[in-house]
Formats: sequence, structure tokens, C-alpha cells
Amino acid sequence: MKFESYLSGFVDGEGCFSISFNFRQRLKLGIEVRPSFSISQNKKSLSVLKEIHEFFECGAIRFSRHDQTYKFEIRSITDLVKKVIPHFRKYPLRTTKADDFEKFDRICQLVSANQHRNAEQLEKIIKIAAEMNPSGKRRHPPEKLLSVLGKVKR
Amino acid sequence: MKFESYLSGFVDGEGCFSISFNFRQRLKLGIEVRPSFSISQNKKSLSVLKEIHEFFECGAIRFSRHDQTYKFEIRSITDLVKKVIPHFRKYPLRTTKADDFEKFDRICQLVSANQHRNAEQLEKIIKIAAEMNPSGKRRHPPEKLLSVLGKVKR
Repeated sequence: MKFESYLSGFVDGEGCFSISFNFRQRLKLGIEVRPSFSISQNKKSLSVLKEIHEFFECGAIRFSRHDQTYKFEIRSITDLVKKVIPHFRKYPLRTTKADDFEKFDRICQLVSANQHRNAEQLEKIIKIAAEMNPSGKRRHPPEKLLSVLGKVKR
Repeated sequence: MKFESYLSGFVDGEGCFSISFNFRQRLKLGIEVRPSFSISQNKKSLSVLKEIHEFFECGAIRFSRHDQTYKFEIRSITDLVKKVIPHFRKYPLRTTKADDFEKFDRICQLVSANQHRNAEQLEKIIKIAAEMNPSGKRRHPPEKLLSVLGKVKR
């Protein structure tokens, strides 16, 4: 069985590509961009997460007390750009998650090239992220992020 | 990309193996057993269901007004035994859904061999099904089915 293809199918159902933002005073533009690829499962299916963790050779599995699930997550921008994105280029997604992946890829390339430190590029990132499927509630809605960014730029 | 492996990954996240029961007076034992394999998606990901439908060359896609989703479903016991079960034997599931699949397989083999028309075997089927992950609310709880069956047997 080809694990690579299985993985893309599994992620098409269970995976999550997300971009979250945090306010950080120490940063020039005051906004941190955090791309993340994750998969959550309950305890009974923890072994699949371990297989995926071993496959990617990066990221970490954490237990979330909040919803009693295990989450495998990759946050390192280098790992996302060098391992995660090439995988889904080679073994493509087939649901609407493929659209999220395209946006995620664009943002990761910008962050990887340090473009998120440039106000115009950060604005672009916020706008692309706003068009992605929100995984749960957005901590900071795009309007607020753009407003904060606007004040910094002035 | 190997579609077979993708499919098993996708089904591990999104697929459903279920056994439902209906009361049917015209049947000797009064209980109909209906195994079903299904995958539901919203309209935006309908194309994946179409690919899976073409791959299995059986079953049907229906729109559910109730939850505004499309469901691809295979109910024919012949198709389940000859196409669906062999697929997941060759390209195994890796989550707890694999346990459901084992029980589903056992029940399908019994139904395929017409064993569900025998009271003792039907009781066995009801008990195996009771140990499967319920997909949504059970229309007829196992206690009720066993009680009805008990009255027929007497």
C-alpha cells in the first residue's frame, strides 16, 4: 500500500491547513503570522498520527485537554515549505481542501521569503487567509488585523 | 497518484460502514438487515464522490435535503461483498474505522450467505452491529431488535 496516497486521502478528510495571527508588540508591524498544518484524532486512532509523524519526520503530537483529542501539528515554516507542501504537490488533494492548500502554499512562500515583514505583503497575506475556510472561530477577524496594520503603516 | 490508496485514506476520515435494521412484517423473522457503505460531502466536493462512484462502478449519489449534502452509497450486498470489501482488504484502513470494517465484513458475509434468515444468526448479526460505532442515532436499539426477535423465535 502506498502510504503517500493514503495520507493525501486522509488529509483531504481530516487535515487542516490554517493561518493564525497574533499581536506581538516586539515585531515591527505588530502582527505575527503563523501557518500550521494539523490533523486531530481521538485516542483510539492515535497510531495513525504516529505513522504520519514518522513519515514527515517533523512536527509534534500534542494532547488537547479541551476537546480530548490528539493533534499532530507542523508549524516550522522550513518544514512546511520543504516537506509538507511538496508532498501535496506530488499527491494532490481532491476536495475543496485543495483550494485552501493553494492559498496556504502562497502564504507559506511569502513567509518563507520574509515578505510578511513588509506591510503591503502582510496585507496581502491577511487577505488571502481571509478567503480560506476558517477552522473553528477566528481569533482575530481580518478587518481587525487590517485596521491594526493600517495604523502601523501610517 | 494511486487512487486506490487515496480512497482508503479518504474513507478512513469520511467514510461510513453501517448496518441498519427495519421491521418488515412480510419477512419470516420480521427484521430486515441493511448493510451500507457511504461517504457524504457538501456540494463543493461533489466531484470527489463522482470519482469514487466511477471507481467502484456501482452504488449511487443522492442529495440529502435534510443536511444539504451529497451522499454516495452502496447498498447492494453483491457489490459490497465483491467490490467494496475486497478493496479495503487490499488497501487497509488505519484508524478505528478498521474495527468497524471488520464487523461490517463479518455481517456482510453472513447476509450474503443468507444467514440473516436464521434466527440464531440474525441474533449474532444484531449483536455484532451493536458493537459498531453508531453513525448518528440508531433507529432501532439492539435491545429492541433482540426483544422482537425473541418473540418470533418463541
